[in-house]
Parts: sequence; structure tokens; C-alpha cells
Amino acid sequence: MIWTKKDLIAIKDLSVEEIQIILDTARAYKDLILRPIKKVPALRGRTVALFFLEPSTRTRISFELAAKRLSADVINMNPSTSSQTKGESLLDTARNLEALKINTIVMRHKHAGAAEILAKNLKASIINAGDGFHEHPTQSLLDLFTILENKKTLKGLNVTIVGDILHSRVARSNIWGLTKMGVHLTLCSAPSMLPKDIEKLGVKICYDLKKAIKNADVIQLLRIQFERDSGILFPSVKEYGNLYGLSAELLKQLNPQALIMHPGPINRGIEIASAVADGPQSLILDQVTNGLAVRMAILFLLSGIDEGEGMRK
Amino acid sequence: MIWTKKDLIAIKDLSVEEIQIILDTARAYKDLILRPIKKVPALRGRTVALFFLEPSTRTRISFELAAKRLSADVINMNPSTSSQTKGESLLDTARNLEALKINTIVMRHKHAGAAEILAKNLKASIINAGDGFHEHPTQSLLDLFTILENKKTLKGLNVTIVGDILHSRVARSNIWGLTKMGVHLTLCSAPSMLPKDIEKLGVKICYDLKKAIKNADVIQLLRIQFERDSGILFPSVKEYGNLYGLSAELLKQLNPQALIMHPGPINRGIEIASAVADGPQSLILDQVTNGLAVRMAILFLLSGIDEGEGMRK
Amino acid sequence: MIWTKKDLIAIKDLSVEEIQIILDTARAYKDLILRPIKKVPALRGRTVALFFLEPSTRTRISFELAAKRLSADVINMNPSTSSQTKGESLLDTARNLEALKINTIVMRHKHAGAAEILAKNLKASIINAGDGFHEHPTQSLLDLFTILENKKTLKGLNVTIVGDILHSRVARSNIWGLTKMGVHLTLCSAPSMLPKDIEKLGVKICYDLKKAIKNADVIQLLRIQFERDSGILFPSVKEYGNLYGLSAELLKQLNPQALIMHPGPINRGIEIASAVADGPQSLILDQVTNGLAVRMAILFLLSGIDEGEGMRK
Repeated sequence: MIWTKKDLIAIKDLSVEEIQIILDTARAYKDLILRPIKKVPALRGRTVALFFLEPSTRTRISFELAAKRLSADVINMNPSTSSQTKGESLLDTARNLEALKINTIVMRHKHAGAAEILAKNLKASIINAGDGFHEHPTQSLLDLFTILENKKTLKGLNVTIVGDILHSRVARSNIWGLTKMGVHLTLCSAPSMLPKDIEKLGVKICYDLKKAIKNADVIQLLRIQFERDSGILFPSVKEYGNLYGLSAELLKQLNPQALIMHPGPINRGIEIASAVADGPQSLILDQVTNGLAVRMAILFLLSGIDEGEGMRK
Repeated sequence: MIWTKKDLIAIKDLSVEEIQIILDTARAYKDLILRPIKKVPALRGRTVALFFLEPSTRTRISFELAAKRLSADVINMNPSTSSQTKGESLLDTARNLEALKINTIVMRHKHAGAAEILAKNLKASIINAGDGFHEHPTQSLLDLFTILENKKTLKGLNVTIVGDILHSRVARSNIWGLTKMGVHLTLCSAPSMLPKDIEKLGVKICYDLKKAIKNADVIQLLRIQFERDSGILFPSVKEYGNLYGLSAELLKQLNPQALIMHPGPINRGIEIASAVADGPQSLILDQVTNGLAVRMAILFLLSGIDEGEGMRK
Repeated sequence: MIWTKKDLIAIKDLSVEEIQIILDTARAYKDLILRPIKKVPALRGRTVALFFLEPSTRTRISFELAAKRLSADVINMNPSTSSQTKGESLLDTARNLEALKINTIVMRHKHAGAAEILAKNLKASIINAGDGFHEHPTQSLLDLFTILENKKTLKGLNVTIVGDILHSRVARSNIWGLTKMGVHLTLCSAPSMLPKDIEKLGVKICYDLKKAIKNADVIQLLRIQFERDSGILFPSVKEYGNLYGLSAELLKQLNPQALIMHPGPINRGIEIASAVADGPQSLILDQVTNGLAVRMAILFLLSGIDEGEGMRK
């Protein structure tokens, strides 16, 4: 099977085979970025625009580095400098980027669906780097990649996601990604932090952290997004930590092979104890490194499409 | 004839032959940017500083891409991070850029004449990317280029510029550029939005849109710059649209070969109807693409000068 | 002797031999940046992050150009876009940069000691680009380099630093650098602008400008940092200028070979008269050019370390 999609908008839209192609391609790039010379000419002469309409550091930098290590030219656009402040519509701004012969637009936007609108209207490849509370597909792909570096297969694994599922596009992408790959997925949260009817996606719900992670092979902790609305959903940070924080004591009661993941940036002492974040079971920094490999893979795979050649191998 | 100027400050200063050299050079770069690999090593080892002291996206990105596709190193400076906030004079900041052995400084500044001051005091090449209400020469050059892609010659064409001429450096550069190239130029505006004695530059004035564009081969609509002072010159946006906006109905009454241009970003439904902007006569996105080609040409031509070699061919 | 340090944090930590290696390496790069093609592939495939948590233009741009001319990939992080606004600790942000396989982090931070914390906790090389009122080592190295371009040796030279020593990390680094290299160093300031017990570092104090510079071979004027606390230490700018400003009249009374230096940006007419800043004895713009050469040298020397190879020659 070869890659045929022009855009990466949502894990929901990907087949298991497509996810597999991305993960396989990322594996080669992981090797590359561990070498002293981390650069290949794969995207030389091509241009990637980073069009981030919400503040972001780590995702933007990860994409920027991924593009540069593939030798692409990179253009940064951010909310404060964008023509959008001059009243231009999103689509008009994007059409202008396309007219500049930009090959790939990586976009973060506060509204769900924004990336899809661009994908449908432009010939340029669109990568969704987070759209509202909808999806953040590369984060899920790097999570799948990271688990697979440590476990033989995703199939049959017990994975628990803990925290504010409602406001998390990371959780939404992971629910699609993990269940597609055959994971037994449990969500641990309060009723107020869960989307309605989420069970219909084939996940278990458990309100008690201890029970939810008892048999987990992988525990994914979500970040309390103080800069968003998370804060209003629970009475106090301390109470959140008591109910949903992973302490060193609790970790000791679990399977010592259980893996700990978090999309970062972490709030130490709230959703995760420092000893857990820095402990041997933590994959938090591996996730960061693997994000690079996955984003290089995506940029490379999409670049094979816009010239109508299919995947370049 | 070969290119001999160190700087590009104003269309007013260019001879017809110089304009012709730029347009000819741009034609070769237009071919390049339509190829899959859009990069040439022409400016390898040279540095271009983008010194934008007014907010800008599209012009800055266009220059940034132009420089990168010529393989130059690019440095971004913007108002918020500049030493100018520490009270340094413009000329001292620019002298520092020169001491860093930067070859070309692309500057946007709110004061007319700022680019010229730099040009006179520095050995580095200066490109004026807009100075107050004075000039924006690359915008005019890309307009000339775009018309020439669609018409055999500029000589004898009827071109009408519509809108707030007074506050538009785009209009000012185009008045010089178009009349130099032999265009019959009409300005359509209200008396309050016209510079005094503008007729002396060899243009016709017409206050009635319908009459002004009746025989036009090209109609250039200007943007209402809400972020500047344009808003105070007419009673309401609706009234402006009624008087100076190009509607689909009005367009139907014109020569079907008439070309529609706009420097962007467009205000849909005000100075231009959506159907017109997106219609077959609109060259708005071609202008964006051609801006790249023209800026590559300028960067290339000026780079031949600072080593005293004349134009490199 | 070969270079063995992973980081550059403070001149205080460097031996005379280490300073010598940096200055020798910088000399080769000075030649390079005066050539038309200013680029070498020394750092190709390596990544430099510019992590500036205080506003900065000239130092950031100097490092950015230095890195790009060595063909490194460069990532810019600034205070407004950093994850630090999401409550992440400095060390966690830096660990994330390291997980992205960034080789060198150039950091400016408002707190003294910040760069050292990173150096001790990360495998990546850390360059201190200014930490609070502590040190700014590359500024001192470029000052040493600039003096040596004009004098046969530093040993035995009379150098006077004038201004607000207390709030100047440039002065602090220069006190270490100049005295290590055998300079007779005089500080000229008011008691309120001098650190306690500064004489113990082997410098002379002189409160009278005329006396302090009478026999000086080099006069370094410090900048009044209006954006910091300097302003509160003296009654008025005019009075500061009268007491510590270098006027054209005063300069005439000195050794005509005396060199004038200033780290920039200069406040014309306050700490330095325009005629002095622009006069033949002024090395202010040479300092800017030499900053590039010194930073290229540092980036190159540190790059030989993180692979455990020692200095690459």
C-alpha cells in the first residue's frame, strides 16, 4: 500500500494501514535524528508554512525542526503578524500562501474544522496541528510510535487516559488512534470533563483513578490547561491532584512495566508527581523526540502527493 | 544596458530601461517558482535582513521566500524586538546591521523617506518595502509584470485606479510606474482622497466610477486601510462600497477582457464583490505569485552591485 | 592545548589559554565574514536554539547570523511564545529542547545563574548570552578581540571602563576578561553604581572621569540602560552626561591613539558625544563585526565537544 492522502486532518479519517505507513516511515527518521548529522535533502526546494493562530512553542518548534532537517524552507506566521488582523478571511490568507507556491501549510487554529476547510479549498497540503477541541493528529501518532518502541504491539494493550477529556484534542485523536490499533482503552475523568456519549466510541469509562489504572500497560496523563477552560471544571487544583494526579505512592502499587506518558508541558505536583515524571517508567521526553520523527514522516509522505507521484520511496 | 543601482527606493527614480531589466529578470524567476524544486544558489553566502518597522505579513513573507529561494540567509527584525525600543536612532540600528555584514536590508517604515536615508548612508543595498504614504516600488513592479503577462504591451492601455489614492503608497508607485510605461491612467476617487495637484503627473481624474472604468483594460482597486486613516474620509463603509466598490453587476457592463487587480488583503463586499474577486477576470492571486518573481529579480540584481561587478548574468 | 568545555557560561571560569583558543579561532572567522561568500558547512546538520527570555535584537541577531553562516539550523524562541507562559519550569522547557536533539542552546535570562543551571543539567551545550547582572561572556570576548586587532598585546594596557558598573553584566565579564589578560583596569563610576568590594578583583577605582581616562589606551563606555534600573542611580541624564559622558573636548585632551569602545546601543549625547562615536578612534562598529567572528568561534568550538571528540580542527 502507498500513501495517497494530500492532507493530514484527523486520525478519525486514517485507516490502520495509513497509520502503519506513517509509523514505519517515522522509524527511519528516528534513526536519522539520533545521528550527529541530522539533515537529509528530501524536501530541498520545497516550502513549509507554519501558520499558528494560537500560541504554541513545542509543536511549532517540532514542525520547524522536522521541516528544516528535511531541508525545506520554512516560513513562520503567527497571530500577531498575520493579515488576519487586517480583517482578511482565513481562506483568503491561506489562498495567498498557496499563491506564494508554498507546498505544505501546518495550521493550528482555535476553531474545530478550520484545517479541513483549508484542505478542501487548496491544492497545498494541510497538516492539522490542533483545531479547537477537535483533533491533534500528530500528537496521537507520536504516542502510538512511543508505545510501539516499548511494547511489541498495540493490539490488546490496556491503555488509560486520565484527565479533562472534554477539552483535549490530544485525547480525541488518541481515542481514535488507540482504538483503531486494537487497544483496550479506558478513560478516567469526572462526568463534567467527559464528552457526551463518548462510550459509543468503544472505550470504557472509570471515575476512580486507582481502578482505572490498576491493570494499565500505559497511562496517559492529560495536562490541566489553565490557559483554557479546564480550571472551571473542578473545585481546586489540589482536589484535582488528589483525584486524578499520579503520585509516586500510587505508581508503586501498579505493574512496574506500566509506561507513563504526558503530552507536555507538565504541571509538576498536579497531574503528575515530579518523581513519576522523572522516573524510569516515564516516556515524556521520548514523546518529544518521537514527535520530530513522526512529523518528518508526515511532511515527507505528503510531499510525494502534491506532484501526483504517490509516495516517494 | 546593465543594472547599476545599489538600492530600490522609488519607481519615480527608475528609467524605463531599468524597469524593463527588472521585468525581464522576473520572467526567468517566474518559471523557476512554478517548478517543483524552486531553489537556486544565486545568493548563497549572502544575507538579507527583513527590517519591518510596521506590521506586515504578505510583503514580509514574499521577500523572505524570495530570499530563501535564492539561497540567501535571512534575518527577521520586527518593531517589538528592535533596539529602536531602546532609543537607538534608525540610522544607528541600520549601521549595526551593516556591521554584521548584511548585504541587503528590506525596510518598511511609517515615515516617507526612511529608506532613502539608509540608502544614502550605508554601503548595504536598501529595498524600500513601503515608506509612509510615499512609495512601495515592488508592488508597482509586480503589477506591471502581471499586466504584461496578460497584455502584449503596457503602451496605450487604459488603466483605472479606484479608491483612497491619498493614503496609498501602492497608488503612488503605480502612478509613476504606469505612466512611465505609456499607460493612459485614470484615478477614480473622491476629492478628499486625492493628493493635491495630482493631475500634474499626467493622469486623468474621474469622480464617477462607472465612467472611470467604462473603457478600462485594467481596473486596480485599492484596499480601504481600516488600520490607517482611510476610514475617516467617507461617511460609511456601505456608502464607500456603493460609490467605489466593484460589483458583479457593474463588471458585466464592461469589456469582458478587462483585468481586475487589487494589492490585497481584500475587503470582500466593500471595495470588491466576492464574485469579482474570485471571477475569471481577477488577477489578484497572480499578483501574489508574481510578487515573488519580481522580488527575486530585485534581490538578484542588487546583489550584483555591492561587489562592484555590475549585473551578474 | 585543545578546547574541552561543553558550555560557555562565564569569563570567570575560563583560563587564559582557553580565552586564547577562542580569540585565535575567531581570527579565522573574521577573515571569512569579510569575504563575499560568508558561509562554511562546519555546523551542517546541527541545530542551535536561540532561547532569549529577555528582549534582545543585536545579540540575538549576531548569534543567529553566526550560526547560519556555519550552516547550522536555527530555532528562535522568545518570551511571548515560550511554554514558560504555560507555567513550565525553565529546566523542563530546556529538557524539551534537548529532547528535540538541539545541539546548542544560546540563552538570555533575567536571573543570574540561569545558564549555569541548564549547563549542569543538560547534555546540550549552553552559551550564556547574558544572565541578569552576572555575565555576558561573548561581549567581553569580542572586546578583547577588538582591542587585539588594534594593539599588539593586552598585557600592560591601561583600560578604563566608565559608567554604571553595578547593573552591567558587560562590565562584570570584562573585569574578569581584561584582568586575566594582564590589563591595568580602572573603573570610573559613582559609589552608588559600583558593586561592593569590587577592588578585590584587582581593579582601580576612580570617581573622576578626567583622571580615570588620562593615560588610558582604551576607554570603554557603558550604556545607560534606561529600560533597567540605571536611571534611578543619578539625578538626571544631563548630570550623568556631564560627569561620565565622553565629549569631543575631553577626547582631544587624551592620547590620540586611545581607542573608544561601547557595547551599544549608544545613547548619543549622553554617555558618548556623536563626534566621538563617529570619530576615527571609535571601534564601536568593529565591535559589532567582531561579535560575529567570536560567536562563530564559540559555536564551532563547543560543537566539537558534544560528540566527545574534543576540538575539531
